[in-house]
Amino acid sequence: MTPAPTRPGVQGPTVADVGEFGLIAAITAGLAPTASVPVTVGDDCAVLAPTGRLAVSTDSMVEDVHFRRQWSSARDVGRKAVASAMADVVAMGARPLALVVAVVLPPDLPAAWAQELGVGIRQEADLCGAVLAGGDTAGGEKIVVAVTVFGDLEGRTPILRSGARPGQVVAYIGNLGMAEAGLTVLRRGFRSPAAVVNAHRVPAPPYDQGIVAAEAGATAMIDCSDGLVADLRHLAEASGVVIAIETENLAVAEPQQTVAAAIGRADPLDFVLRGGDDHALLATFEPGRVPAGWTVIGGVAAADGDPGVLVDGAPFTATEGWKHF
Amino acid sequence: MTPAPTRPGVQGPTVADVGEFGLIAAITAGLAPTASVPVTVGDDCAVLAPTGRLAVSTDSMVEDVHFRRQWSSARDVGRKAVASAMADVVAMGARPLALVVAVVLPPDLPAAWAQELGVGIRQEADLCGAVLAGGDTAGGEKIVVAVTVFGDLEGRTPILRSGARPGQVVAYIGNLGMAEAGLTVLRRGFRSPAAVVNAHRVPAPPYDQGIVAAEAGATAMIDCSDGLVADLRHLAEASGVVIAIETENLAVAEPQQTVAAAIGRADPLDFVLRGGDDHALLATFEPGRVPAGWTVIGGVAAADGDPGVLVDGAPFTATEGWKHF
Repeated sequence: MTPAPTRPGVQGPTVADVGEFGLIAAITAGLAPTASVPVTVGDDCAVLAPTGRLAVSTDSMVEDVHFRRQWSSARDVGRKAVASAMADVVAMGARPLALVVAVVLPPDLPAAWAQELGVGIRQEADLCGAVLAGGDTAGGEKIVVAVTVFGDLEGRTPILRSGARPGQVVAYIGNLGMAEAGLTVLRRGFRSPAAVVNAHRVPAPPYDQGIVAAEAGATAMIDCSDGLVADLRHLAEASGVVIAIETENLAVAEPQQTVAAAIGRADPLDFVLRGGDDHALLATFEPGRVPAGWTVIGGVAAADGDPGVLVDGAPFTATEGWKHF
Repeated sequence: MTPAPTRPGVQGPTVADVGEFGLIAAITAGLAPTASVPVTVGDDCAVLAPTGRLAVSTDSMVEDVHFRRQWSSARDVGRKAVASAMADVVAMGARPLALVVAVVLPPDLPAAWAQELGVGIRQEADLCGAVLAGGDTAGGEKIVVAVTVFGDLEGRTPILRSGARPGQVVAYIGNLGMAEAGLTVLRRGFRSPAAVVNAHRVPAPPYDQGIVAAEAGATAMIDCSDGLVADLRHLAEASGVVIAIETENLAVAEPQQTVAAAIGRADPLDFVLRGGDDHALLATFEPGRVPAGWTVIGGVAAADGDPGVLVDGAPFTATEGWKHF
């Protein structure tokens, strides 16, 4: 690592000063091989040794599309990138095992920002029990964090989106619409209520509940990333069923009510029905087999016509969920 | 998929017109589950079922850093993204199994470009025997293609960088310095010789030779992405040895000589020693165990002082290889 020149207007060395190898060394310091990741960073590949089949997903976050540096710290961005990707592994009923990260970093970005990003990545990996197994850095104009995550199915059958059947119940665990309420206040220049702003910055997927649901016999499961109704629709379409939910089963949290009142939004339930990025788990079960802590919000019915979602008995037609582009 | 409005100056629909789900549907059309990838695109995760441990690597390509749209077709970019990543799997002695791809696409990019990118990704995946198992798309200002690749070790021990020992020989198979010669002419506004320009656009890693080397008892192996001397240095440092190569064993191809003469470069061997991005394989073997088709270029000696590389008996001190930032 070369000595870092001080530049006008920049606090400390930049990514260009520290260089690719210096950054990787800083972010991966202290990583050691484990039984399930016997070869880690430093070779052409990492080697994974799962006990069963492997669930794999990839997800990326782009500066000014998925996060803004003035709203989220580097550590928040690292944690969110891992959490939002690993939620997909959890939704298969797999145990978080490992991850690899490809980052694009502007050369003039403070190196400290990149290092804090790495701290956030490792912090969230620790929280869900996964090992950072490799990565790649490249230069570019905007920050991109692309995370690929691995989960060990440990002999369990993966829980797909397509297994919901009429007569089953639909339930969730985790937050709904909290991140969306947080983003709403950040967009208006506010920084509170803390509960919703923090939910936007770092989601809290229920990491241990995917396996719990699988062991309880969940018939279908999905990570709620696009929004409650949007993701239930994905599940309904994959299963060829209608999912009917009742809003009386959905609680609006106090800070969501506060935000809705402050911005003159007619119905705070909108956050809950449409807000994405919280990474709750949605799953279907045979009646009476719903695990403790999950909230039943409705049921599965046969599709007479098109599969879809009914909210309080009516089709939910308003624009749903987050779409890129 | 909504009907595509025609825009002034744009040929056909854009990425924004087609949308995330439309693009994914086009790129993943016809993908079906296989024995080794029993769950493919369309759920929260893909599921991989390797027969042995899994080699994993991630690699990204950024527009105007790793490729330019005026120099490479979308199909070239897709093929190169897969080839350059999968070369790492091959260099562990693993068999290419699957890949997942996260792409960042500008909303105003022609959808046809994105679809051709997908065609290139699937074409190269077919060529190396791997299955496209999943992906993610996001919006952004510049194109980013982040590829995570998986190889099945099938019970073999991974070939690391750290196994080279004094008395062994070092050999390579594949191209050296062809892509660099191609980039040199493209930068000067030329489009030929075709052999080097094509080598820049789409590398040709020797996909079947990683397993061949492993079965021949390769003691160390590395994907040559940064340049011959730079990557031999990585291997020497990981193994704690000196690697001494003789340039009389290195051939300069005719188009490399042509390019060197045309640009007034003193020594065309420079391309071979320093040029990256060709993804040859470099490996060490016990003498007499080098597989057919590989070229022996030198040997391994004990490191008296620092590990490193000798070229014709002298330390190679010129700037080596490609560095980002």
